[in-house]
Amino acid sequence: MKRLNQLENTGERIEPLLKKMSQIGVDTFIVSDLHVIRWLTGFSGSSARMLLSPHRNLLFTDFRYAEQVKQEVDGIESIIIQNGYTDSFIEGGYLQGKRIAIQEEQVTVHEARQLGEKLEGVEIVPVHGFFYEFRAIKNGKEIDCMKQAAAISEQVLEQILPLISPDVTEADIAAEISYRHKRLGAEKDSFDPVVASGPRSALPHARPGTDRFKPGALIVIDMGCIYKGYASDQTRTVSLGKAPDEARKIHDITREAQQLGIDSALPDMSGRELDALVRGYIEKHGYGEYFGHGLGHGVGVEVHEKPRLGKKSDDVLSVHSVFTIEPGIYLPGKYGVRIEDTVVMEEGGVVPFQHFTKELIEL
Amino acid sequence: MKRLNQLENTGERIEPLLKKMSQIGVDTFIVSDLHVIRWLTGFSGSSARMLLSPHRNLLFTDFRYAEQVKQEVDGIESIIIQNGYTDSFIEGGYLQGKRIAIQEEQVTVHEARQLGEKLEGVEIVPVHGFFYEFRAIKNGKEIDCMKQAAAISEQVLEQILPLISPDVTEADIAAEISYRHKRLGAEKDSFDPVVASGPRSALPHARPGTDRFKPGALIVIDMGCIYKGYASDQTRTVSLGKAPDEARKIHDITREAQQLGIDSALPDMSGRELDALVRGYIEKHGYGEYFGHGLGHGVGVEVHEKPRLGKKSDDVLSVHSVFTIEPGIYLPGKYGVRIEDTVVMEEGGVVPFQHFTKELIEL
Repeated sequence: MKRLNQLENTGERIEPLLKKMSQIGVDTFIVSDLHVIRWLTGFSGSSARMLLSPHRNLLFTDFRYAEQVKQEVDGIESIIIQNGYTDSFIEGGYLQGKRIAIQEEQVTVHEARQLGEKLEGVEIVPVHGFFYEFRAIKNGKEIDCMKQAAAISEQVLEQILPLISPDVTEADIAAEISYRHKRLGAEKDSFDPVVASGPRSALPHARPGTDRFKPGALIVIDMGCIYKGYASDQTRTVSLGKAPDEARKIHDITREAQQLGIDSALPDMSGRELDALVRGYIEKHGYGEYFGHGLGHGVGVEVHEKPRLGKKSDDVLSVHSVFTIEPGIYLPGKYGVRIEDTVVMEEGGVVPFQHFTKELIEL
Repeated sequence: MKRLNQLENTGERIEPLLKKMSQIGVDTFIVSDLHVIRWLTGFSGSSARMLLSPHRNLLFTDFRYAEQVKQEVDGIESIIIQNGYTDSFIEGGYLQGKRIAIQEEQVTVHEARQLGEKLEGVEIVPVHGFFYEFRAIKNGKEIDCMKQAAAISEQVLEQILPLISPDVTEADIAAEISYRHKRLGAEKDSFDPVVASGPRSALPHARPGTDRFKPGALIVIDMGCIYKGYASDQTRTVSLGKAPDEARKIHDITREAQQLGIDSALPDMSGRELDALVRGYIEKHGYGEYFGHGLGHGVGVEVHEKPRLGKKSDDVLSVHSVFTIEPGIYLPGKYGVRIEDTVVMEEGGVVPFQHFTKELIEL
C-alpha cells in the first residue's frame, strides 16, 4: 500500500518552491490547496495544510486521516492536529520568520482574518498562483498516470456506446460511465460526465437529462476519470442512427479543426496562438460564432489547470505540459459537436493520450 | 422541467434575509455560496452569484448555464454575465448602497481584494454564517425531498447487502452504491460512500479499499445521496458471517445509545446536551474513549450543515431542524461500529427518515 499515490519526489519538488519563496521574500508558506498538497506529497485526504520553509517542511491533517497519511505519504513529516490548523501552527512554533505567505486564491477572508488575529508581529503575505507554473510541467510518472487514466476512460467509452438506444436516457449512460470508471480501477470521475443529446448537445455543459435518446440525435460525451490522483479528459460526439447532413458537416469541420490543432502545436507557442489557429479554421468555414469557448486547458491533479488555451491566454505550451485540444461547434436549438483529446507537449509537438476514432460513429 | 428543483418560495425566503441585512446595516449582499443559491432559487449550476437588496434580487451565472437557469429558476431575475462577476455587478450598477456584505467564509482573499480595488466609495463588510440559521429550519417540501433521498439510499442498502462476499472488495461495493443511487433517481452521492471492513471499520472516515472482504469482518456502510438538491445520510454496520462476541457487544451498546438519542431529543435542546446524553451512555459502558467524534450534524442542501451536535456545540435543535444521530465505538486495530439515522425535529421529539433495521445483520 505504501506510496500508492506517492510520486517519490516531494523533496525534488520542494526545492524550486523554496527558491521562489526566497525570491519573493517570504519565510514560510502556508499551503491550503489540497490539489497542491496531493501533487507535493501524494496525500489524498479531504483536510490538510502544508508549511514550507527552508528550515522544515510539514504536512498537517486531522485524526480522521491518521492512518491514511501513513499509507500515502513518505519523505515528509506529518502532524495530526488537535485543534484547528492555525492553533497547531502557533502552538508548535512552526511558523518560521516574519513574512508568512498564504495562497490568496484559496484562503477565505475568514481564515485570513483569524490568522491575522492570532499571529503577532508577523506579516501575512497574500500570494497569487504560486504553484501553477510548477504544476504545469509534468514528470514521467505523472504522464504515466494520465495515460492510464485516459486508457480507462477510453475503455469505458467503448463499453457504453453499445448501450445507447432509444430505450435509455442520458442520465442512465452517465451513471454507467461513473460506475465503469470505478470498476476499471479509477478513483472516480474527474468531473460529472456530460452526456448531451439532440438540441441539448448544443449546450457545452448540459447536465444529463432523463428523456430517452431520440433516433438521429447527435450525442456529445465528455468524460474523464482520476487515476492515482491524475485526471483524464476526452470528448467524442456520436449519432444515434443516421446523422443529418448539416450535423455531419459540422462534425467534419470540428474534427479537421481539432486535428489541425494537434498537428500545429509546437513547444513554447502561447495558448492564444494555438486557439487562434484552430478558431481560424472554424471561422473560415463560417461557424466561428458557434465556437463559444476556449480551445482547451491544462490537465493534471486538477482537470482544469494551467496552461489555458483561449483568446486571452498568454500561457505558454511548454515541453511536458499536458492540455486538452477541444474545439466545438454548437448550433442553438439544433445540435452541437465537440471533439477533445488530452495531449502532452514533446520536443517535436504534441502526442495525444487518446486513440479512439474521431470519425462520426452512427450507432 | 420547469421548477424541477425549485421550491417556489424564493420570495418567502428572501424577506427575513433582507430584514436581517437591515439589522446589521448592509445595503447589498453578494451571495457566493452555491448551496445558499440553490437553497434560495433552485439553481444547480456550478458557477453563480446572487445579489440581495431591498431594491432588487438578482441571480448571475455564465453562458454555460443560460439554458439551465431558465429551466430551474422562477420568480427571480437572472443575468448571464459577459465578463467576471465583479465587472458585471459594476457595469450594471447592481450594487446598491454604500455597505456591501460578502460571505467571509466563502470569499477568497483574492476575490475580496479585487472587489475592493474595483469598487470606489463602498465599504466591503465581511459577514460570517449569515444564512446558517435560516437554512437549518426546513419547510415541508424540503423535508419531503430529504425523505425521498433517504428512501432511495435505504433501497440501495437493501440491494447491495446481498452482494457482499469474500469475492468482492470495499471499492466494488462503493461503486455499486454510487451507481444504484443514480439509477434509482438520485442526482448523485451526497458524499463518497464509506465501506470499511475489519480493522478499517475502526477508522471513521476510511476510503474504500481494494482488499476482499474477510469472513467475520464488521463492515461499516455510511452512505447518502442527493435528491432534488437535498441530501440524505445513513450508516449501518453489518457482519460478514458470525461476528466476534466483543463486536456484537459494542454493536449492542452503539444501537442502544443511538436509540436513546432518538428517544430523548426534544425541541430547543442544544447539540451539546443531546451529545452528552448519548456519550454518557457509551461512557457508562466503558467505551467513552472510543467514541471520538461528535454525535451528529445538520443535513439539508449540504450533507454537513447546522445544527452541529457535539461536546462544544451551542446550536439549538429547533422544530423542523434536520440532523443526524450517529454514535460510534471504534476499537483501533480491531473493529468499529457506527449507526446513523437522519431525523427531523417535530413538536414532540424527533422522527427518523430511515426505517432499516439496526439489529446486527450477519450476512
